[in-house]
Amino acid sequence: MSFDRLSLNTATTKKWTLAEAVEGCVRAGIPAISPWRDRVHEAGLDKAARMIREAGLRVSSLCRGGFLTAPDADGQAAALADNFEAVREAVALETRELFLVVGGLAPGEKDVVAARQRVADRLEELVPFAVENGVRLVLEPLHPMYAADRALISTLGQALDLAAPYPADAVGVAVDTFHVWWDPELKAQIQRAGRESRLASYQVCDFNLPIASDALLSRGMMGDGVIDFATIGGWVRDAGYTGDIEVEIFNQEIWDADGNAVLETMKKRYAELILPYA
Amino acid sequence: MSFDRLSLNTATTKKWTLAEAVEGCVRAGIPAISPWRDRVHEAGLDKAARMIREAGLRVSSLCRGGFLTAPDADGQAAALADNFEAVREAVALETRELFLVVGGLAPGEKDVVAARQRVADRLEELVPFAVENGVRLVLEPLHPMYAADRALISTLGQALDLAAPYPADAVGVAVDTFHVWWDPELKAQIQRAGRESRLASYQVCDFNLPIASDALLSRGMMGDGVIDFATIGGWVRDAGYTGDIEVEIFNQEIWDADGNAVLETMKKRYAELILPYA
Repeated sequence: MSFDRLSLNTATTKKWTLAEAVEGCVRAGIPAISPWRDRVHEAGLDKAARMIREAGLRVSSLCRGGFLTAPDADGQAAALADNFEAVREAVALETRELFLVVGGLAPGEKDVVAARQRVADRLEELVPFAVENGVRLVLEPLHPMYAADRALISTLGQALDLAAPYPADAVGVAVDTFHVWWDPELKAQIQRAGRESRLASYQVCDFNLPIASDALLSRGMMGDGVIDFATIGGWVRDAGYTGDIEVEIFNQEIWDADGNAVLETMKKRYAELILPYA
Repeated sequence: MSFDRLSLNTATTKKWTLAEAVEGCVRAGIPAISPWRDRVHEAGLDKAARMIREAGLRVSSLCRGGFLTAPDADGQAAALADNFEAVREAVALETRELFLVVGGLAPGEKDVVAARQRVADRLEELVPFAVENGVRLVLEPLHPMYAADRALISTLGQALDLAAPYPADAVGVAVDTFHVWWDPELKAQIQRAGRESRLASYQVCDFNLPIASDALLSRGMMGDGVIDFATIGGWVRDAGYTGDIEVEIFNQEIWDADGNAVLETMKKRYAELILPYA
């Protein structure tokens, strides 16, 4: 069984430090990792980069920049500064792919059209810096249930429209099965992402039912929910995606479980449900 | 202040019987009602029709038929029989508009493409009977968080595509703000619904945050959540919609409150947030 495209997103093993996640990957034979920035900061950027490199792991992406919707000048400056820093971190970690979760409405705001325009405006300011640094900004559509408070990009088509003004190696898009499985346009938009060479990441996790009481934690281990990984995986494959496949799960039960056991389950489910269609 | 387009969907006052809801509307000067079928059955169809008629109320729609995704012959026959019955009930209640919540995946099923095809197949069987009876089937896109278990129609565009083979007075679509506010294509699809004369209902309620622990109950009173009723209401108006505006809220706090007080709040919020743009 080949796990050579499997990547652990560190959100899946939330209680592990970056060092523990790196050790866990090495122990489990998982060749790639997608660290969250809070765990990178905790370890220190240089040390984080060194420990990943010395462990022989590949960094499939950095999670995450974004939150670009501040309406005021100070908030916009702070968001830009944080995203510039995220680009520098991606460089240090030797990954090309920087995820952006673009942010939701400002407090009290209801105008989604205006808030989306601010995302486009900030992107315009960010792209040149990312390009100079050889980093691709990866727009991630989030499930519409998170539109108001996390990401006003809700569909892959919308992400591709937002990316359209920029070169494909400057702005890409992510397919995260949890967020997009329900989209009636999904097949067509994955094909489009392939044609436009913007498919920058494929993240797998399931959509569990009932929705968790904290809706953010409804992500499940592949096979535990309703998602048809064979079909979506086939669309991603046919669109020409050959990169890493990240497992990113927010789920209290999985977070409470032993990290090594989680990685073993993850490999088993990957082998059964993902790899045959990849 | 004119409430002549306001309609109470009986789900909003869940603990009220149909008789209580009818009395509540009369008392509050609300001229229209959208009854749920369980409350109609409880009262008895003939008696329900008579009490609404004698109260001088208009029935803006009947909620709801649908659940068309059964994969087996028995399940499909039962679904058709139930929807034929719902058409007859709509006739008895003197409303043209029968809402359909089309249903989700079958137990254990993951193939959304196949399940959506079954919706299209059942619709083909239902339409002639509805047309004979002068009833319009109203396809309601539900928020994508309910795609797996309640409705595999998640966007207005998808509903319009499904309606496309049929005359506009046979199959219409509903705009329920809770379900569609996040859709980046919303303006364009409301315009399209207007052009195609399929805009059969406008339902208003808010999208509350955080999402309720029972995700079905996150619907809120207009003004309590994130939805921009001015903008969406303007799009619906500009698309030529002049019909009733229903308030349909599933919310435990509202269900626990005094029904008459809920109707007063509903009128106040309607006057402030809905009517100026209608």
